[in-house]
Amino acid sequence: MCRFLTYSGPKALMSPLIFQASNSLVMQSKYAQKRKVPTNADGFGLGWYPTQNDPIPATFVNVDPAWSNRNLKMIAEKVETQHYFAHVRDASKGMPVSQANCHPFSCMHYLWMHNGRLDQFDKFRRQLLNQLSDRAFSLIKGNTDSEYAFALFMDKLEFAEQASLSQLEQAMEETIATIMTLRKDAGADTNAFINFAVTDGKHTVVTRFATLEGVKPASLFFGRGEIRLCQEGIDFVPHDNDDACIIICSEPPTDESDHWVKVERNHMVSAVANERVSQRRLDLPFQADI
Amino acid sequence: MCRFLTYSGPKALMSPLIFQASNSLVMQSKYAQKRKVPTNADGFGLGWYPTQNDPIPATFVNVDPAWSNRNLKMIAEKVETQHYFAHVRDASKGMPVSQANCHPFSCMHYLWMHNGRLDQFDKFRRQLLNQLSDRAFSLIKGNTDSEYAFALFMDKLEFAEQASLSQLEQAMEETIATIMTLRKDAGADTNAFINFAVTDGKHTVVTRFATLEGVKPASLFFGRGEIRLCQEGIDFVPHDNDDACIIICSEPPTDESDHWVKVERNHMVSAVANERVSQRRLDLPFQADI
Amino acid sequence: MCRFLTYSGPKALMSPLIFQASNSLVMQSKYAQKRKVPTNADGFGLGWYPTQNDPIPATFVNVDPAWSNRNLKMIAEKVETQHYFAHVRDASKGMPVSQANCHPFSCMHYLWMHNGRLDQFDKFRRQLLNQLSDRAFSLIKGNTDSEYAFALFMDKLEFAEQASLSQLEQAMEETIATIMTLRKDAGADTNAFINFAVTDGKHTVVTRFATLEGVKPASLFFGRGEIRLCQEGIDFVPHDNDDACIIICSEPPTDESDHWVKVERNHMVSAVANERVSQRRLDLPFQADI
Amino acid sequence: MCRFLTYSGPKALMSPLIFQASNSLVMQSKYAQKRKVPTNADGFGLGWYPTQNDPIPATFVNVDPAWSNRNLKMIAEKVETQHYFAHVRDASKGMPVSQANCHPFSCMHYLWMHNGRLDQFDKFRRQLLNQLSDRAFSLIKGNTDSEYAFALFMDKLEFAEQASLSQLEQAMEETIATIMTLRKDAGADTNAFINFAVTDGKHTVVTRFATLEGVKPASLFFGRGEIRLCQEGIDFVPHDNDDACIIICSEPPTDESDHWVKVERNHMVSAVANERVSQRRLDLPFQADI
Repeated sequence: MCRFLTYSGPKALMSPLIFQASNSLVMQSKYAQKRKVPTNADGFGLGWYPTQNDPIPATFVNVDPAWSNRNLKMIAEKVETQHYFAHVRDASKGMPVSQANCHPFSCMHYLWMHNGRLDQFDKFRRQLLNQLSDRAFSLIKGNTDSEYAFALFMDKLEFAEQASLSQLEQAMEETIATIMTLRKDAGADTNAFINFAVTDGKHTVVTRFATLEGVKPASLFFGRGEIRLCQEGIDFVPHDNDDACIIICSEPPTDESDHWVKVERNHMVSAVANERVSQRRLDLPFQADI
Repeated sequence: MCRFLTYSGPKALMSPLIFQASNSLVMQSKYAQKRKVPTNADGFGLGWYPTQNDPIPATFVNVDPAWSNRNLKMIAEKVETQHYFAHVRDASKGMPVSQANCHPFSCMHYLWMHNGRLDQFDKFRRQLLNQLSDRAFSLIKGNTDSEYAFALFMDKLEFAEQASLSQLEQAMEETIATIMTLRKDAGADTNAFINFAVTDGKHTVVTRFATLEGVKPASLFFGRGEIRLCQEGIDFVPHDNDDACIIICSEPPTDESDHWVKVERNHMVSAVANERVSQRRLDLPFQADI
Repeated sequence: MCRFLTYSGPKALMSPLIFQASNSLVMQSKYAQKRKVPTNADGFGLGWYPTQNDPIPATFVNVDPAWSNRNLKMIAEKVETQHYFAHVRDASKGMPVSQANCHPFSCMHYLWMHNGRLDQFDKFRRQLLNQLSDRAFSLIKGNTDSEYAFALFMDKLEFAEQASLSQLEQAMEETIATIMTLRKDAGADTNAFINFAVTDGKHTVVTRFATLEGVKPASLFFGRGEIRLCQEGIDFVPHDNDDACIIICSEPPTDESDHWVKVERNHMVSAVANERVSQRRLDLPFQADI
Repeated sequence: MCRFLTYSGPKALMSPLIFQASNSLVMQSKYAQKRKVPTNADGFGLGWYPTQNDPIPATFVNVDPAWSNRNLKMIAEKVETQHYFAHVRDASKGMPVSQANCHPFSCMHYLWMHNGRLDQFDKFRRQLLNQLSDRAFSLIKGNTDSEYAFALFMDKLEFAEQASLSQLEQAMEETIATIMTLRKDAGADTNAFINFAVTDGKHTVVTRFATLEGVKPASLFFGRGEIRLCQEGIDFVPHDNDDACIIICSEPPTDESDHWVKVERNHMVSAVANERVSQRRLDLPFQADI
């Protein structure tokens, strides 16, 4: 089911959220708090936008547990960025652990990651593939539902050279709607956990969604404020100044009393750089049913 | 373009051909003699049939160069078998190095490997996929032309619980014929190198084929005889006794003057256990053209 | 702190204890029951004695979590042996995850593994090294307290070509005694967890020891009986027939009500092949203090 | 025997020298031109100084061949720096392939790498270790002669918080002198190849040395000038402007007619940032003999 986080804000190292926070992403790779199984050790990934004038993000992924990869530590401690995605993976049953299956996935200037599982994926995998344009089809290098969903998203977005926040939101909703239709047609009636995250380097859209009404979606939080180094690692101080950062995350990296906002069930969080962030209900065709 | 070998014979360790021969498969991973580029360091694989009563082969594959993998050495030196496939990979340009892309591939009691390249694979990959049955479609875990070809082969063989030598030969020829048609339809007119190898644990079929007339196929040899340990590694002594082994290989593991038989262009080598081995011309629909 | 097990018995696959048991070693790599932290995901290892006439064991080790390594599954399901060691590692803080640091360690026909930690190892590491013979010194390839302890053990055993059970026991006690002296001299006064296991392919000796009186040593169990495949995985049926196997393990692989024997604090379990197994108190010079 | 290069100059990506040059370091990992064996595929490493105000370099190392590591490509293409070391490894016989054995090695603000081999290292390894201070002893995590030499160097430099160019040169010469004495005392009379490189982020010192008179040292070149992107990759245009960069390398990354300077046998190249670079004869106690 994985854990992830996104950061948008002043140019900074990635280590405070990845390593130094008391509930850093690396802590969550071994001791996740908001899951029954605390382990997310089937690989990890970073995607960051360079500070020089280059819109195409770098990704660094590997199959080891995040806690023992010496290169992850180096990059988190030495590379500065204003915008990044980070992910630790818990592979769904039967899904291979491989670099091609590590998040975030990238295409053009977009990054994508997923915390969840499109249950019974094998029942509609081929149908999903058949729907893709040749360009989207050629994106897929691995075996995960997550990467297939990203290819579908890129088709919904029509591989836009530039996209507004609402275009990203709409492509996201269409992606989920198509997945729901595919699942329905295939008779996949168990729950799908759909916390998707996408960014173009400026706009970030993240969903918190479970397809069955009775099922709690995977956790999701966000905050706008400031990271301060302190003795126990870091504090997060909410504020709305221009130099605030926006963090969207499966679990708060610091104490929850630091005023992290819990995202509502079947909602979507949208952010513009580090300027503003809000959530709204997902607008889905079958919403009545869920 | 890879290097491979197959062994069928008395129960034995794999190390003589993998490590001890002067031109062992591990030597060929760094110093292949019959290629322009001597390096086959993008992973390796073993597939062997257990000596206990178990028809399903084990596979052991990894992405490191064969020469530096300490576990490969252990297995080659400690596990006995009467029948095995071994492969060292040189990834085609753009093909990822991953476990899922390492040969041999397995399905049921069959093993498959490939030395070559279906040039311009991207031009007909999706068409090939569309031809597959759902069962064959679900076999594919990686990105290689080789694995796709194996899925196609399994369809041609109709996933037979048991197959005769001639059924294997026919499915092999049909596989190649379909690939040629797909390539033709897609306008892929450069050469494809098609040295495929398949076994069910008893019968082995290996091709030596290049689609363009002017192009030399990848090398292929075979021999029937006895492996003898000697000071320089091993000797191969051809003979036809009952305890002979049959080896089919990209390059002779010992001195060529050891009477290795060179397989003819566009031919197929077929063997029944360690009992008999012979080559004949491939029977392909477009054969007139090639 | 790791988890391990040893098997001695009729020729068998390794998969029942490594994969199929409800609390198999692979389960213990993610969900260990008798530790505060359930994760043992910093690599794994197998050491087994071939069934052919070869006294030198094979080892297969790697740095990934045991649960996701496809080759481990293959070897456990396809290779038969009468005697093996298996280990899943939880690296002590600061110890690198590397193949050289994976257990079991081997030398000649001996295998060694460790579940525990020689706390404050850095305080006496160099002194330990200085005590070693050149031959023992040259054994060390990695960084772990465990491997250093094995080198010390080989010196205590004088690299014996053949050893009796009592020689193994004595070398084990001398090894622990020297470590205690080294620690004392270095002022390392916190607890050391010393569950060591050694075998020569026939005799097996495993300790359960904590240097400080108030501290509970790491768990250790053993059983003599029969593994039976059942619907939930395997059952363990204790008996004393000739075809019984002997298992010594950090945690019972099956339900504890299957009459697993808990090893006493500061005791040593000794077994001769699958013939007999018993525990006795460790005979250590400082025993009065502990 | 490895290949390496160092860069000092205007803030830039690492990809031109690592990937884009016709004889880039990654090309040298598979097709090195100035060695009998063209393969340097036993791991690789980068060490770079961050552009933000942080004197401690990052290192990124791994055990795969440089040509197939997707993360290396990412970092080379996305991370800017004014000063870096890069290395592709060909492990000496018997030396394990592991992250701990990958160059460059780092300590404080220093980086170290080695192209060569201290032949018969086992004969004097323990003596070298015994000479080290506790602090230098604790640096060693792997098994290579190269890393041991770096620990010795740090002792010769007395772990200086700041060092001048001449202090680095002197510590380098003392390191080599001690190694020669250790080898002599141990009866190691075959040739040692000693191309060492060290930097503190500003000063760079690289040696080209072979201990036996009749033996050609490993190749070494340097140049001062400008990297220009061109159709075939990059050109190197020598000049002495302020924005020149200084490159010191086992093999010229571009055509040799680009005026690369060949370093003389048993000489040392010294550079101050990108300001000046020159070579002089190594001043060694036994120089008369060599």
